[in-house]
Amino acid sequence: MPVAPTAQVHPSASVAADAEVGHFAVIGAGAEVGAGSVVGHHVVVHDGSRVGVGVRVDDHAVVGKRPMRSLRSATTSGDAALAPTVVGEGSLVGTGAVVYRGATLGARVLVADYATVRERVTVGDETIVGRGVAIENDTTVGARCKLETNAYLTAYSTVEDDVFVAPGVLTSNDDFIGRTEARKAAFAGPTIRQGARLGVGAVVLPGREVEGEAVVGAGAVLTGTAAAGRVWVGVPARDARAVAPEQLRENGG
Amino acid sequence: MPVAPTAQVHPSASVAADAEVGHFAVIGAGAEVGAGSVVGHHVVVHDGSRVGVGVRVDDHAVVGKRPMRSLRSATTSGDAALAPTVVGEGSLVGTGAVVYRGATLGARVLVADYATVRERVTVGDETIVGRGVAIENDTTVGARCKLETNAYLTAYSTVEDDVFVAPGVLTSNDDFIGRTEARKAAFAGPTIRQGARLGVGAVVLPGREVEGEAVVGAGAVLTGTAAAGRVWVGVPARDARAVAPEQLRENGG
Amino acid sequence: MPVAPTAQVHPSASVAADAEVGHFAVIGAGAEVGAGSVVGHHVVVHDGSRVGVGVRVDDHAVVGKRPMRSLRSATTSGDAALAPTVVGEGSLVGTGAVVYRGATLGARVLVADYATVRERVTVGDETIVGRGVAIENDTTVGARCKLETNAYLTAYSTVEDDVFVAPGVLTSNDDFIGRTEARKAAFAGPTIRQGARLGVGAVVLPGREVEGEAVVGAGAVLTGTAAAGRVWVGVPARDARAVAPEQLRENGG
Repeated sequence: MPVAPTAQVHPSASVAADAEVGHFAVIGAGAEVGAGSVVGHHVVVHDGSRVGVGVRVDDHAVVGKRPMRSLRSATTSGDAALAPTVVGEGSLVGTGAVVYRGATLGARVLVADYATVRERVTVGDETIVGRGVAIENDTTVGARCKLETNAYLTAYSTVEDDVFVAPGVLTSNDDFIGRTEARKAAFAGPTIRQGARLGVGAVVLPGREVEGEAVVGAGAVLTGTAAAGRVWVGVPARDARAVAPEQLRENGG
Repeated sequence: MPVAPTAQVHPSASVAADAEVGHFAVIGAGAEVGAGSVVGHHVVVHDGSRVGVGVRVDDHAVVGKRPMRSLRSATTSGDAALAPTVVGEGSLVGTGAVVYRGATLGARVLVADYATVRERVTVGDETIVGRGVAIENDTTVGARCKLETNAYLTAYSTVEDDVFVAPGVLTSNDDFIGRTEARKAAFAGPTIRQGARLGVGAVVLPGREVEGEAVVGAGAVLTGTAAAGRVWVGVPARDARAVAPEQLRENGG
Repeated sequence: MPVAPTAQVHPSASVAADAEVGHFAVIGAGAEVGAGSVVGHHVVVHDGSRVGVGVRVDDHAVVGKRPMRSLRSATTSGDAALAPTVVGEGSLVGTGAVVYRGATLGARVLVADYATVRERVTVGDETIVGRGVAIENDTTVGARCKLETNAYLTAYSTVEDDVFVAPGVLTSNDDFIGRTEARKAAFAGPTIRQGARLGVGAVVLPGREVEGEAVVGAGAVLTGTAAAGRVWVGVPARDARAVAPEQLRENGG
């Protein structure tokens, strides 16, 4: 069926003639659903969101959520002018995934089940955002990255192209762990340069940089800079060795 | 719209005249939704739950869930007499968040997307329960705490006021890791005293205490007591130094 | 009520006369819901899924989801012939839990809130799959296991009977961390033998084995084999001592 009779589609929404919309879905005012897209049951596409051509949105996903404002939240503000959510051509949005207003997903992005992409986040083409991953506000993620299950990218992170983030990787942006007003000026997410890789359960402290093609090992805690093309292991992480040549991208790794 | 025509509101439920209720929401028997509240699409407010004045409940959230009983669950019992869920004035309940029957949220609490608050849990005023956080049964969390993304509080935890728990912090309550019947009498969650702070990815073992204003560093594994006002780092955690004076609450930190 | 009038039940679905189905639930073509089962609000049971006798499925759960295919996914293929999902007698499926097509749950299994069980996964009788746990594709989990909150089992894992996995345990299957085509032939999940136990926040590297009744301690990173009946602690994990006799299963532990 193109649009389930039980779906609530706002009269001002634009749903392509060949798109499918599941039972009890809600498509808000001015929202767009592109040609060939398949929207699951109980999906919510909030006002103004733009779902591109050939997109699959699974059951219970929410596109275009507006941020919740706590008086005590330290890192978010200025949401009045958030741009409508954009989900690029050929992307997949998993069951219960939440893509906030102000987020932009490129083409052929996969956002897996229960992943969250917050406001003012850009995700590059063909990146995989794994199951349960949280990408906090004001973060940029490049193209062809893999962020695996339950990885956590704090607010103000920068992730370049071709980065691999293993399951359960954690990041932080607050060296003062929630104290002193001065910290708010010092918030700094990590910077993960092109082709870097973070192993399962690795932890990257606020503002640290993982340089190009560097590897942070499983369970390592990175307290400094991870120099390019080197493998960093341990708690705290130390320089252990060079990345194996055959694993470098320039060698087709 | 005040109440979407597609919502299912039980005749014995009480929804304030100016409250908004989204499409396909289900409001159960005897449930209350206070003045000025906004309930999203596909929300379920189970029988008898009390949602206060000025509360925002986002899409797919569930308020008042009854616990599931496994024959093999070690820590839960006596759910017959669980009190109805209370969501305090001005609180925010995120997308897909689950607040169990027997939980009480204070005023202006934020429970972010996909967080879970179990039965017999109390959360103090203005505390932030981050995205994906799980607060297990029989736990007390004080006021003005911040529990960040994916932090995990085991059953029988005690968290006092003004505590900061960074993303991915883990706790445990079973020193016997699931063996011997004797362990069930020895279950003990951690105690986190006022103003203590746990860094990103820190682990606190069963029954351990983090004293007032102590800090457990990023990635540390706390196997003993963290003395007040000291910073504990490493695996296992050792006393590294005093907390910087300007970060102490008594100094306005 | 047996079946809510707002539920969408496909004419070819089979719902037992005494089963309950909540508001806005969707029961697909050829799906079965067994006698005495209780299906919550907004649940989706996709085409052909078989929900057994006496099963409880909570609000927003999804049974029978078809995998999403990313061009860049390394570990999944051949989903065309996935068998219909089976949920065994007396099992519990939590709020928002997702059980994929091709998964088989035994009898009296508990899949807690927001847990995910992927395609070609088998879960044995009376196992508890905790809140937020992800069991990736092509994994076998035995009977009477406990997988606690947010534990992560990578694709191609083998978990035998009576295994205990504490909260936040992480596993990995890719020793090359996403590089070289050769890695795809080398993918290997961990093997966790009968009665083994993994402590809170432990990390198990690709292809490693935890032998019978071994314990991997809290926060440990297992880089080799954990020999049977021994306790392994630290980063990397080292043999610390024998498991206490009273905790062994042969002694009634």
